[in-house]
Amino acid sequence: MKLWGGRFGKDTDKRAEEFTSSISFDRRLYREDIAGSIAHARMLGQAGIISSPDADLIVSGLGQIEQEIERGDFPFRLEFEDIHLNIEKRLTEMIGPVAGRLHTARSRNDQIALDEHLFIRAACSRVQAAITSLQAATVEVSKQHKDAIMPGYTHMQRAQPTLFAHHMLAYFFMFERDYSRLLDCAKRASLMPLGAGALAGTTFPIEPRRVAQELGFDRLYDNSMDAVSDRDHVIEFLAALSVAAMHLSRLAEELLLWSTQEFGFVEMDDAYSTGSSIMPQKKNPDVLELIRGKTGRVYGSLITLLTVMKGIPLAYDSDMQEDKEALFDAFDTTCDCLELAAAAVATMKVNTDRMYDAARRDFSTATDIADYLAARGLPFRQAHEVAGRIVRHCIERGKFLHELTAAEYRAFSNLFSDDVFSVISVEASVRRRKSPGGTAPERVEEQLETASRILAARS
Amino acid sequence: MKLWGGRFGKDTDKRAEEFTSSISFDRRLYREDIAGSIAHARMLGQAGIISSPDADLIVSGLGQIEQEIERGDFPFRLEFEDIHLNIEKRLTEMIGPVAGRLHTARSRNDQIALDEHLFIRAACSRVQAAITSLQAATVEVSKQHKDAIMPGYTHMQRAQPTLFAHHMLAYFFMFERDYSRLLDCAKRASLMPLGAGALAGTTFPIEPRRVAQELGFDRLYDNSMDAVSDRDHVIEFLAALSVAAMHLSRLAEELLLWSTQEFGFVEMDDAYSTGSSIMPQKKNPDVLELIRGKTGRVYGSLITLLTVMKGIPLAYDSDMQEDKEALFDAFDTTCDCLELAAAAVATMKVNTDRMYDAARRDFSTATDIADYLAARGLPFRQAHEVAGRIVRHCIERGKFLHELTAAEYRAFSNLFSDDVFSVISVEASVRRRKSPGGTAPERVEEQLETASRILAARS
Amino acid sequence: MKLWGGRFGKDTDKRAEEFTSSISFDRRLYREDIAGSIAHARMLGQAGIISSPDADLIVSGLGQIEQEIERGDFPFRLEFEDIHLNIEKRLTEMIGPVAGRLHTARSRNDQIALDEHLFIRAACSRVQAAITSLQAATVEVSKQHKDAIMPGYTHMQRAQPTLFAHHMLAYFFMFERDYSRLLDCAKRASLMPLGAGALAGTTFPIEPRRVAQELGFDRLYDNSMDAVSDRDHVIEFLAALSVAAMHLSRLAEELLLWSTQEFGFVEMDDAYSTGSSIMPQKKNPDVLELIRGKTGRVYGSLITLLTVMKGIPLAYDSDMQEDKEALFDAFDTTCDCLELAAAAVATMKVNTDRMYDAARRDFSTATDIADYLAARGLPFRQAHEVAGRIVRHCIERGKFLHELTAAEYRAFSNLFSDDVFSVISVEASVRRRKSPGGTAPERVEEQLETASRILAARS
Amino acid sequence: MKLWGGRFGKDTDKRAEEFTSSISFDRRLYREDIAGSIAHARMLGQAGIISSPDADLIVSGLGQIEQEIERGDFPFRLEFEDIHLNIEKRLTEMIGPVAGRLHTARSRNDQIALDEHLFIRAACSRVQAAITSLQAATVEVSKQHKDAIMPGYTHMQRAQPTLFAHHMLAYFFMFERDYSRLLDCAKRASLMPLGAGALAGTTFPIEPRRVAQELGFDRLYDNSMDAVSDRDHVIEFLAALSVAAMHLSRLAEELLLWSTQEFGFVEMDDAYSTGSSIMPQKKNPDVLELIRGKTGRVYGSLITLLTVMKGIPLAYDSDMQEDKEALFDAFDTTCDCLELAAAAVATMKVNTDRMYDAARRDFSTATDIADYLAARGLPFRQAHEVAGRIVRHCIERGKFLHELTAAEYRAFSNLFSDDVFSVISVEASVRRRKSPGGTAPERVEEQLETASRILAARS
Repeated sequence: MKLWGGRFGKDTDKRAEEFTSSISFDRRLYREDIAGSIAHARMLGQAGIISSPDADLIVSGLGQIEQEIERGDFPFRLEFEDIHLNIEKRLTEMIGPVAGRLHTARSRNDQIALDEHLFIRAACSRVQAAITSLQAATVEVSKQHKDAIMPGYTHMQRAQPTLFAHHMLAYFFMFERDYSRLLDCAKRASLMPLGAGALAGTTFPIEPRRVAQELGFDRLYDNSMDAVSDRDHVIEFLAALSVAAMHLSRLAEELLLWSTQEFGFVEMDDAYSTGSSIMPQKKNPDVLELIRGKTGRVYGSLITLLTVMKGIPLAYDSDMQEDKEALFDAFDTTCDCLELAAAAVATMKVNTDRMYDAARRDFSTATDIADYLAARGLPFRQAHEVAGRIVRHCIERGKFLHELTAAEYRAFSNLFSDDVFSVISVEASVRRRKSPGGTAPERVEEQLETASRILAARS
Repeated sequence: MKLWGGRFGKDTDKRAEEFTSSISFDRRLYREDIAGSIAHARMLGQAGIISSPDADLIVSGLGQIEQEIERGDFPFRLEFEDIHLNIEKRLTEMIGPVAGRLHTARSRNDQIALDEHLFIRAACSRVQAAITSLQAATVEVSKQHKDAIMPGYTHMQRAQPTLFAHHMLAYFFMFERDYSRLLDCAKRASLMPLGAGALAGTTFPIEPRRVAQELGFDRLYDNSMDAVSDRDHVIEFLAALSVAAMHLSRLAEELLLWSTQEFGFVEMDDAYSTGSSIMPQKKNPDVLELIRGKTGRVYGSLITLLTVMKGIPLAYDSDMQEDKEALFDAFDTTCDCLELAAAAVATMKVNTDRMYDAARRDFSTATDIADYLAARGLPFRQAHEVAGRIVRHCIERGKFLHELTAAEYRAFSNLFSDDVFSVISVEASVRRRKSPGGTAPERVEEQLETASRILAARS
Repeated sequence: MKLWGGRFGKDTDKRAEEFTSSISFDRRLYREDIAGSIAHARMLGQAGIISSPDADLIVSGLGQIEQEIERGDFPFRLEFEDIHLNIEKRLTEMIGPVAGRLHTARSRNDQIALDEHLFIRAACSRVQAAITSLQAATVEVSKQHKDAIMPGYTHMQRAQPTLFAHHMLAYFFMFERDYSRLLDCAKRASLMPLGAGALAGTTFPIEPRRVAQELGFDRLYDNSMDAVSDRDHVIEFLAALSVAAMHLSRLAEELLLWSTQEFGFVEMDDAYSTGSSIMPQKKNPDVLELIRGKTGRVYGSLITLLTVMKGIPLAYDSDMQEDKEALFDAFDTTCDCLELAAAAVATMKVNTDRMYDAARRDFSTATDIADYLAARGLPFRQAHEVAGRIVRHCIERGKFLHELTAAEYRAFSNLFSDDVFSVISVEASVRRRKSPGGTAPERVEEQLETASRILAARS
Repeated sequence: MKLWGGRFGKDTDKRAEEFTSSISFDRRLYREDIAGSIAHARMLGQAGIISSPDADLIVSGLGQIEQEIERGDFPFRLEFEDIHLNIEKRLTEMIGPVAGRLHTARSRNDQIALDEHLFIRAACSRVQAAITSLQAATVEVSKQHKDAIMPGYTHMQRAQPTLFAHHMLAYFFMFERDYSRLLDCAKRASLMPLGAGALAGTTFPIEPRRVAQELGFDRLYDNSMDAVSDRDHVIEFLAALSVAAMHLSRLAEELLLWSTQEFGFVEMDDAYSTGSSIMPQKKNPDVLELIRGKTGRVYGSLITLLTVMKGIPLAYDSDMQEDKEALFDAFDTTCDCLELAAAAVATMKVNTDRMYDAARRDFSTATDIADYLAARGLPFRQAHEVAGRIVRHCIERGKFLHELTAAEYRAFSNLFSDDVFSVISVEASVRRRKSPGGTAPERVEEQLETASRILAARS
């Protein structure tokens, strides 16, 4: 039996009922729904809108329902549309008609808004924890290979030698911004909508500040129509997850690149790799590939919600029911990806020799040659030109910078003396880049300290 | 036990196994997977790659597995990764090691490609059927209210009177393009990938044309690397669904608009409406709202796949595993929306009186006044100006065009005589728009005939 | 002549030069580029990396270039690739080879990062100002029509009577969140990248904190690779604009709805409407339509950048050059839309009579009837049922609630007495919804005060 | 002076005029607009709706205007809103009031629809030509290096040896599908909208089939409301471009990968590379990076239009004006990328020795070892296991398969004899994959012939 039969001459079509029902996915909000209902019932009792015994009865019934659901005993039913009615119906079975008093002074429009606010808040924390675990893995691997030198790249071409730890810590600070965005998101979502009713508020003398306080919200919505029409917090959350997913895709791409036989800088642990049913030699880093691919899924969810909300009038419209699956999927996906990325980074084998070799057998200290000449008085633009010609000379002869003789150097400029060889080592190049944030060991040490301090403060 | 243990020193991490496993969603492809395997086994037998009795044993085992799955008896197992291995393992239990011969000369890379091609082909037909049912509903409702006149709108403002049937048939022809796009999509997807192996083809003397013929494909892929790297058909299908979803969102929006108390042109049947738990008078057209909202979901799936495929190297990458859930969701969503839109249109009450009244109590025949003056020799730009001033005069006095007196008309131009009243009726306005595709009754009749002919040819 | 000829054996292809050049759009960053260069030159001088007279010469040259550009005299040249080189070349013409010292200890990678940070910061302020103007318009129109009652809608169906001011203020608070998101965005973007060099830092003893201070940045990047690889601030800005654009699309949709002849609640001012070249009566609210449509453009820019950044390795890649046009377009679009929405709201005519009539000639106080019965002891679910039946009775007879007789009411329940007529007035319904944030006049007054206080603090 | 002043009491606001004007971008459609107007004028003359001399005068005036525009002499004016009015105003200046007859029996709604149909048709051809040039480049480079062997990859890990030509031709066939999608798109867009008027058709006895024939359209729209409401052709075109852009991103990614020092398979020509202003050794393949990045731009345009069209009522709404800039940008971008990709592929240096070495110094013939054992009677699953163990043995000892001794092989299985060394060569592995579409030389030769035939038929 529907709650709204009086005005209707006919039952809902079976297919339409299934189409409009949300219980198959909003059941996931049972914990939030029950917590919200308990706070609401208590407030109704305290404000004298319902009697204290009634409030107690309701609260204890709701507690039992939560246990039923967690035990898997709760009989979810499609024809009761959504999580709200499923719980209310069960409460009625348990405690009789007094259950009906729970819905006093609220509507499903503000109730679902409350549930989602509670969910987003918890979800922000959960993603932050997953971010922290990935950040910790980047710190750990940086500490383990503090001195390892690798080529730094721009345009996917070797640019200048860097510390491996420097590269990994770039990800630490990248994900730190994701963490911070989620803080802001949770803070802005800390608005309590209950009491907005269907859209215009309620005639009952409710005390929503009590509810807000019990549930730990900072503030109430200023305007009840806004309260039931708003899904900004969901979109902001999805946008934050999209940036994090983008960061994950970059990390995954780099690890995939480094895992190729051609780079050979890292090797994923067997536990995070899969094989091939026909090619016996294959070890596929498909955890990383999936992390890279799942970015699409998170972006897709963001676009879903932006599209849903485009151009719909105030106040509540059923279109907004479409926000949940996208939210849940993006949330689960991002958490999984962060945690598996953490595990992949923590367990991968780092081939520091391959990295060092790649840095050394290259021209990435050509900048240092130009600087060397500039320091000896040649204008930088000319110094750059000379260094460029030396590189071309090397390429044509299949040599590296440290394989040229002093005489060869002097053929390009008589400013060169034997000390040029000390400048063109990758160690010297790294050591000398000690501007703030740079790749010099003491600067990377500082970054490690900052990172460790941040992690320590969080645990 | 994994299929690829030899090269590995360690088991897969539990969490990674879950993360990389696809059985929870690719099980939906069991029918396609079995059909493909049967065709493959037969070909292997016919080509003498395996023995005929072995082929027969495999084919009959696969048939039994299909029945098990359809009965709900099949024990899907997460640790067997995907639908392919789940079926192969079960086949081995049934018929012993000969099951192993099924995987001769193929890889999971070309196998999944085949499954998806089969799925897309069937999905195109399925969506076309759903489109047809919605088109039929637009024809039906047009026939029922053949003479009903309503205001035609541009910029959401009344523009010129039109036939209601004319408006509904615009949707018929819109969805006809969706139908046609799906035909092209299915045709282009009719490419058989099996035999591509992992990427480079196979060393066995296979005869893929036999497989293509048995499964009803037009052609083979020309290049095996392309065959396993390609997901164009999925994207093209999702793009076609996105356009259809956009069309649905426009239809839903218009019906929602017309269902407002302010328009009152249509009323959704009780069977396709829902009520409110607190507002007794409410009848909400939420089937329409959900149709409008679910557009976001289909767009989201398209973006998901476009993102997944961006910038990934050939040949197969695991990122591509992420194509399935988006595909299934967009497909189901679009079918549901088309069918519920069909039901909503077929059952809605059309208030032709309200429509007629709205058309009549308005200025939408002002164009006809301008034409009237132009026909009597006034240059059109001046005629337009005069008609505009008459409209302003009416608005300021709260009158409609047919409520002015002949004297009032003449005050604006002495070209007016009493026959102006015959021109400004909505019936005359509609009747005179008889250019091809126009709103005149005979033109709409033609469109109805075209539409009926199309539907008849399809059934 | 290119800056990097030494290593190259051939000139760039003309077409490739055009394809890779960014001067056609990054010239817009000239002000930021010059401000950054001035701060950099001063720091180089203060740190003794270049001489003070050289620094002064550079700074004054840059000042002259800025004036040239603002006067429109600056000769932008495609072959100088980007804004950085265009300015450097001109500086060289002006002050000779000493201009070359400006590029000491920096690279274009950190230079463009700095320019964009400066741009984003200013852009946040600019959008906030535009938001404020729209918010002010909603406050103004609310004050002008403080007592106007209109139907409140859910599911595009009349739900409960509300104050027009309440509805308009929902938008105030919605846009307030956009304002707040931009604050956070600007704060998080307040990171100074200069000194990161190409990716690894620089060997010069730079003092980036000076630069940060001069330019008003809160902090430095912790890690130089992150500094040149990061475009989070651009994406976060575009995400914030997307939410604002979504809000604008809802406002535009509602005003479009209200501007239909059927609703007739508002009428756009002639100055913000356009006509038709063939239909003399037409007045099209196309400013609103464009605002609604331009949402697509902002979403498109967000997807552009999310796609660009997906899966690209550290550190700088040229893909990132594609961030600018999307950024500029979304920024301009959003500012224009906000400002035109402000003007449209401020100048529109509000037909309070039509609104009041629509609220009154309806069943939106049916909830109040249910409450009436509940207050007289009938359980709410039964009360809801009775009220529903009364509504059906009215619809079948073409009457409204206040048009029934007391006897008719009593036929449904003998709990009714004559005072029922006082409950079913829209004024009473509005007055009684005085929960926090509700539609009761005193609650709306509070919201107006809050809004006014916010605006006052901002001016 | 506006065309629609009569009904208005006030001028348009300056800012609103700028906001709603489209002349800054739709001027690009001048050629289509003039061609459409000429065909329309001729039809009006032939049908006797206007006089023949008038038609001639108009046609010749339009011809002159086209020349003015192409010479750059045409004074585009913002206050004339769009390309249609700009041309009409100029025509009036030229030939006087008779110019006004051109707009008989049409509206800007069907006029702009016609312009865009003409544009899309030409754009499809243009993109197809650009695709053809890229396809030709892949064929050319395949012919030049017909015998070159490289590692084939799955999961970015070496999988099986392949011919380089095989890999390049995968792109040929991929882009062939793009070509085919554009054919379908152009075919479906071959619908003539003129005559639809504002939405309902026209009262004049027009003969739109004449116009269609003159302009080369296949058919008329069946329904005039559909004709002015439809932007499917634009979306379908953008979706086709998005798939092509995705293909380009994959090609660019692979070439970028192969251009790394680590792979070293190809080297971009100096003419398609850029250098660094500070690192003298750098040669950056930024044409490729931009091609990869610009994918985002094309996806963004698609999302823009899908969002614009979501949920807007029939018939014409001004939102639809937002389709043009996205269309133009995606079109230009895709053409540029295709052509530069063609040039990059055609001019790149292919290091066949590096490729061959990479294929040889690896385990990618492990499948062949498993096949070897299977052919000697070992069940395939066991054979796979043995081969896997041999690979692990090699890795642990830093050896490749051809570096083991026969004795070492026999330690794993006594089925091995000395002929195992003939099986594990990369040449043998390639040669034996001769299934249709496979990598064996004769199969690749077939693909080259198919490709050449396709190209020949097109020129």
